[in-house]
Amino acid sequence: MKIDGRQMRTIWIERDGVSAGIIDQTQLPHRFVTVRLATLEDAARAIRTMQVRGAPLIGTTAAYGVWLASRADASDEALEKACSTLAATRPTAINLKWALDEMVAAVRNRPRNERPDAAFLRAGEIADEDVTINRAIGAHGLQIIEDIAAQKKKGEPVNVLTHCNAGWLATVDLGTATAPIYAAHDKGLQIHVFADETRPRNQGAALTAWELGHHGVPHTVIPDNTGGHLMQHKMVDLVIVGADRVTAQGDVCNKIGTYLKALAAYDNAVPFYVAAPSPSIDFEIADGADIPIEQRAAQEVATITGKTSDGRIETVQIVPDESPVANFAFDVTPARLVTGLITERGVITANRAALAQAFPERAEVRPKSNRMVG
Amino acid sequence: MKIDGRQMRTIWIERDGVSAGIIDQTQLPHRFVTVRLATLEDAARAIRTMQVRGAPLIGTTAAYGVWLASRADASDEALEKACSTLAATRPTAINLKWALDEMVAAVRNRPRNERPDAAFLRAGEIADEDVTINRAIGAHGLQIIEDIAAQKKKGEPVNVLTHCNAGWLATVDLGTATAPIYAAHDKGLQIHVFADETRPRNQGAALTAWELGHHGVPHTVIPDNTGGHLMQHKMVDLVIVGADRVTAQGDVCNKIGTYLKALAAYDNAVPFYVAAPSPSIDFEIADGADIPIEQRAAQEVATITGKTSDGRIETVQIVPDESPVANFAFDVTPARLVTGLITERGVITANRAALAQAFPERAEVRPKSNRMVG
Repeated sequence: MKIDGRQMRTIWIERDGVSAGIIDQTQLPHRFVTVRLATLEDAARAIRTMQVRGAPLIGTTAAYGVWLASRADASDEALEKACSTLAATRPTAINLKWALDEMVAAVRNRPRNERPDAAFLRAGEIADEDVTINRAIGAHGLQIIEDIAAQKKKGEPVNVLTHCNAGWLATVDLGTATAPIYAAHDKGLQIHVFADETRPRNQGAALTAWELGHHGVPHTVIPDNTGGHLMQHKMVDLVIVGADRVTAQGDVCNKIGTYLKALAAYDNAVPFYVAAPSPSIDFEIADGADIPIEQRAAQEVATITGKTSDGRIETVQIVPDESPVANFAFDVTPARLVTGLITERGVITANRAALAQAFPERAEVRPKSNRMVG
Repeated sequence: MKIDGRQMRTIWIERDGVSAGIIDQTQLPHRFVTVRLATLEDAARAIRTMQVRGAPLIGTTAAYGVWLASRADASDEALEKACSTLAATRPTAINLKWALDEMVAAVRNRPRNERPDAAFLRAGEIADEDVTINRAIGAHGLQIIEDIAAQKKKGEPVNVLTHCNAGWLATVDLGTATAPIYAAHDKGLQIHVFADETRPRNQGAALTAWELGHHGVPHTVIPDNTGGHLMQHKMVDLVIVGADRVTAQGDVCNKIGTYLKALAAYDNAVPFYVAAPSPSIDFEIADGADIPIEQRAAQEVATITGKTSDGRIETVQIVPDESPVANFAFDVTPARLVTGLITERGVITANRAALAQAFPERAEVRPKSNRMVG
């Protein structure tokens, strides 16, 4: 997509040919800072400190991390260590594990001296595959938006609510939940986005609003508390969110608070779609309750960072000194609340049969939970 | 209730006998600052700028505002002007209108020179009535908590989730939603409160957490997004929230986001109680959709105030410079999602018949919506 008219991806190879570049997303929306990743540790730190975030971008960054590691030491031991370092950075995103498996498969049977180039090639393919997937999600989601737009009066925009940032910044390009939005906007449809602030890390206010604004998409930032009221008053035509993981039966693990919006959508007959690229689908887990939920630092809830009136970046504490805090990063929306999964292979009903039919090559793996019972 | 061991109310008569004292709640939780209200304009400003907030405390502050106005000028014209000034400060809280009507009734038929004393007396009664009501709500709510505690294993606390601040700070004393919590805690029951942060004004993180902490009640601050996940995992035994207005059929207008928690409670069979002192019940409106919803300044969403690491109070902007913002202050929870209304006359089912039976003297007023249809 475009940032102020300039075509950009969220991760790229630097001109030196031996490092990758990323946007430090912790500095947005107030500062646009890029970071050069030259080593495995750079890549791991970028994921761990959430300079990059979003399941697809985490996966791609990890892939380039394996490449960077292989440039320093391409031995089996070094690559194994690199993968375990990268795998430990974020526990919930399934794409991370998937990308590391892909990288290991790409280099394993090669002589050491060929491994860096093989890793570089495969990481590039993983990045390109993400863009291809998102473009397909955009095309399938566009049809949903066009159908709604056809029922609107002239001049009335289609109102989309989204939670967190499953946007350009969460992927290599286009985003998942935002891909249909950008596709509709670029085609000239009138579209307006309600961006949930998304406490505690404010990815909606800081990232989704930022990227929509820079691409020129009309939007409004709302507190996470607001979406139910908007849906009660017919101010939302559809919800599109992303997914950190979708289970074999269609349960959706996504940013904490997604479940509350799904309940409100269901209660008000507002369609609730989940943009789910196939690498986010975990056919080894059936029940969403089996997904491990990351608990993050109290500091993310207790403090907030922003820009002072004189332009400084400050972090302020917003809870009393002695008050404990809980910070669950994700929740699980049961499949029964999901209108459809927008995948690269089309819009799929959130149930086991439909998912298995759409992805037969992956659904053959028997669910872990069955194996454990059997 | 007690603040660090000292018995206190949230509004009091200063030693000079001619002014009222309040806590500047916009400074909490980081600074405990009291403010002296000596004039009508002081009282109006305190309400308008939310130095005091919460329907019952707004009502009582407005009552003292009429007293302060009457001390300056006790003519009919001056008092009428005082009431319209005070009524315009916050549009949604029904208690404000109720308190002003009470004050007018108390002074109307008296000679001018008696009006200040009559106003002072009636304002004091309104304050005391609030405490009496909240004590009764506490006693009725305590029974609910005791019933749940009886089913717990030894050592397991009863977990209550609350939204916003319907606490001591929202009332003259004890709070409404918090009254059962303080009653349970003071009786020695093990109780733990999840306090929703409550964006955009953070009354949960700043006020509820502060007052629970200072009274010694165990609690945890959570982002507004978290409650659904906690309920899915059986970490919440009951929800108790306050109400800015309850309609004749039991719909509940309360802080934005309340509806989302009610949906999650319903979906997980968690009891959802609303502490509703009778002055908050509006028998003239049947359908919650008819309640006017205040839209507040974008600034409340776009910026946040807190304490820097070196102890300064700073306001920081957390949305991009150009991003528009929406700020609806309240939403309406339909009666079907409410387990019960905890009133000073007991726990009442949220429907027209039960409310009319509990408050026959007030329910005789025919609903406006019927009058308008007929």
